[in-house]
Amino acid sequence: MKQSNPETSNIWMNTKRLETLVDGIFAIAMTLLVLSLTVPQIPYPATNADILYSLTNMVTQFFTYALSFILLAIFWRKNHSQFYFIKKTNQTLLWINIIWLMFVALVPFSSNLIGHYGYLQVPMIFFNLNMFIIGVLYGFNWYYADKKNFIDENLDRKTINYNKKLNLAFPALALIAIALTFIYPSGSTLVYLAIFFIKRGV
Amino acid sequence: MKQSNPETSNIWMNTKRLETLVDGIFAIAMTLLVLSLTVPQIPYPATNADILYSLTNMVTQFFTYALSFILLAIFWRKNHSQFYFIKKTNQTLLWINIIWLMFVALVPFSSNLIGHYGYLQVPMIFFNLNMFIIGVLYGFNWYYADKKNFIDENLDRKTINYNKKLNLAFPALALIAIALTFIYPSGSTLVYLAIFFIKRGV
Amino acid sequence: MKQSNPETSNIWMNTKRLETLVDGIFAIAMTLLVLSLTVPQIPYPATNADILYSLTNMVTQFFTYALSFILLAIFWRKNHSQFYFIKKTNQTLLWINIIWLMFVALVPFSSNLIGHYGYLQVPMIFFNLNMFIIGVLYGFNWYYADKKNFIDENLDRKTINYNKKLNLAFPALALIAIALTFIYPSGSTLVYLAIFFIKRGV
Amino acid sequence: MKQSNPETSNIWMNTKRLETLVDGIFAIAMTLLVLSLTVPQIPYPATNADILYSLTNMVTQFFTYALSFILLAIFWRKNHSQFYFIKKTNQTLLWINIIWLMFVALVPFSSNLIGHYGYLQVPMIFFNLNMFIIGVLYGFNWYYADKKNFIDENLDRKTINYNKKLNLAFPALALIAIALTFIYPSGSTLVYLAIFFIKRGV
Repeated sequence: MKQSNPETSNIWMNTKRLETLVDGIFAIAMTLLVLSLTVPQIPYPATNADILYSLTNMVTQFFTYALSFILLAIFWRKNHSQFYFIKKTNQTLLWINIIWLMFVALVPFSSNLIGHYGYLQVPMIFFNLNMFIIGVLYGFNWYYADKKNFIDENLDRKTINYNKKLNLAFPALALIAIALTFIYPSGSTLVYLAIFFIKRGV
Repeated sequence: MKQSNPETSNIWMNTKRLETLVDGIFAIAMTLLVLSLTVPQIPYPATNADILYSLTNMVTQFFTYALSFILLAIFWRKNHSQFYFIKKTNQTLLWINIIWLMFVALVPFSSNLIGHYGYLQVPMIFFNLNMFIIGVLYGFNWYYADKKNFIDENLDRKTINYNKKLNLAFPALALIAIALTFIYPSGSTLVYLAIFFIKRGV
Repeated sequence: MKQSNPETSNIWMNTKRLETLVDGIFAIAMTLLVLSLTVPQIPYPATNADILYSLTNMVTQFFTYALSFILLAIFWRKNHSQFYFIKKTNQTLLWINIIWLMFVALVPFSSNLIGHYGYLQVPMIFFNLNMFIIGVLYGFNWYYADKKNFIDENLDRKTINYNKKLNLAFPALALIAIALTFIYPSGSTLVYLAIFFIKRGV
Repeated sequence: MKQSNPETSNIWMNTKRLETLVDGIFAIAMTLLVLSLTVPQIPYPATNADILYSLTNMVTQFFTYALSFILLAIFWRKNHSQFYFIKKTNQTLLWINIIWLMFVALVPFSSNLIGHYGYLQVPMIFFNLNMFIIGVLYGFNWYYADKKNFIDENLDRKTINYNKKLNLAFPALALIAIALTFIYPSGSTLVYLAIFFIKRGV
């Protein structure tokens, strides 16, 4: 007889299921970014000059599309990497990830906001804050999984701790980006390019 | 020779397939919620004050986004939990779930409605009614699965019955929320927070 | 040494892969239907009467949402049923299904069209024609799979042939609906309810 | 003890995971194409003539929808075909594919653009350039996988090289389409129909 209790009631929720939701939400959020690129509305008949002018004005939006797509791809990849080693889960870990996904799914909005008002500080703070929260929750996920011994026991302590430190890099970049908005709002997101120069962890 | 008859004609539809549709629709509905957050349209050049004012006015919408995301996540989790124990399916169970998904996929609309008109009673009743129907169909799914002996025979009767009662909690909360709209429309959805204090079932 | 030739070059494309695309497109198309339900735009402050009036005016749209969701669910289910017995695939079968999916993914548009102009004949013909094509391609898929001996050899000839006839039912209903648009456009889609009274096949 | 180093740190990322993201983004991008078909806005009461006129004006948009859907389906199929033989992956291969997906997810925008301004050269160049980049990155993926010996060793050299050449066909078609925009913009995309006459590779 299976008895429902705090221990057994969780058996149905392995990390596999969570990964399905993660994969789905990432694929959709990444593709929804394209909806922030709105086709210019020009009365008929438009001219080539009109379209060229409109598309040129959308350069910030194209850059934002590419940046957000790549940042989301990085987190999708990092999540897979983390869950390769996280072998168990519980209610708290599940909810850390759901709240994390809530901010991941918010990116098409933040991205759209800076695509339109990237010359202002407030929208840039909003976008960078969104990235900061994503980064912090991601790091907290690893920290919590370690604390609860959910991580594969074959992974050595040095690597686990190294990754804890590494997970501070992205939130730190987001904070630098926020600081930069006080000087140069529209260029603040360029700091995320630094992520390509950071040595990979797990 | 396989003969198509009411018994065998159903062999292709195990619960696994249904879960794929459920996972897809939940991931998409949860991510589509972001589309209800529309970037403010301010004529060029906008100021930081304009954006800050617009974003502040969107506070209800952000709250609604978070609430709907979390409520959908709860039902996604509960569905997985239910189908961990439901081992068989038939046409009726399939259709209970499809109608359920129809109301799940409606949430981005209800959510958008109260994000814009949360200060009024009618939209709040609409949203809470949507939640009520989702909750009722969810409970009915478990009730029907039990009646047809589709539930894992290793799960004890006490747990099955306990879950039947537990499944009344969410519809009850939705009814309380509907009652509250007569007094305080915009705060009515706060009752759903009570869900975090209810002892979990299966 | 694997040699790429017309026979072996197809080995990578089993029916499993196709089903993944089918599942994805159905889940998305079904959820996108909700985007055709647009939140009424009422200048601030709106009244309960305004919202109630707007929602009442959307009754056709809600009906269309439910109808389209259910019709798509039926075809999703039927597709799984068909591919439970279709064991092989080739280029042609793949393209029949892709063209089929193209008309499935068109449903949110057709549905939106009759949600707005359901009192007119032209949009109703458009919607019913969309359903007709979906039904015809679905039937053709089974017919072609049989012709090429792709159907599970354990399925008896009688059942295969019975399904061939059964597959004519939905296109027939769509034709009746088209005929009805000449008399009573907005009610023409009610004929699809007949599908619940047709004896199921495979 | 698992030690995280450049060799082992990649073990979690097999090609299977990448394929999940690919499947998701393709299904979504293909279905989002329908959002570029906007229901005509006609003041109430509309007439059948109004709708017919609007739908007739949308002929280019319907053609673009069908063309983009089919081109994306072709690349989805080709990607599966490629990854049937690509057995290993690394960071670079992963990023080639992510950048590729970024341009795949852009297609609903390009498609929408030529659906509205297909009578002009600039939008047509934009669309064809999008296709060119998709084709080039797709070819580069195979080239790189071969260079790194990631391709199934049972696949003979002749087939690998034949596919390298074949992968030039689509970018070449896109270049021809770009050249054609100087003469006949709206017809330039017809060249892609030639793809159905090219002998298939892997």
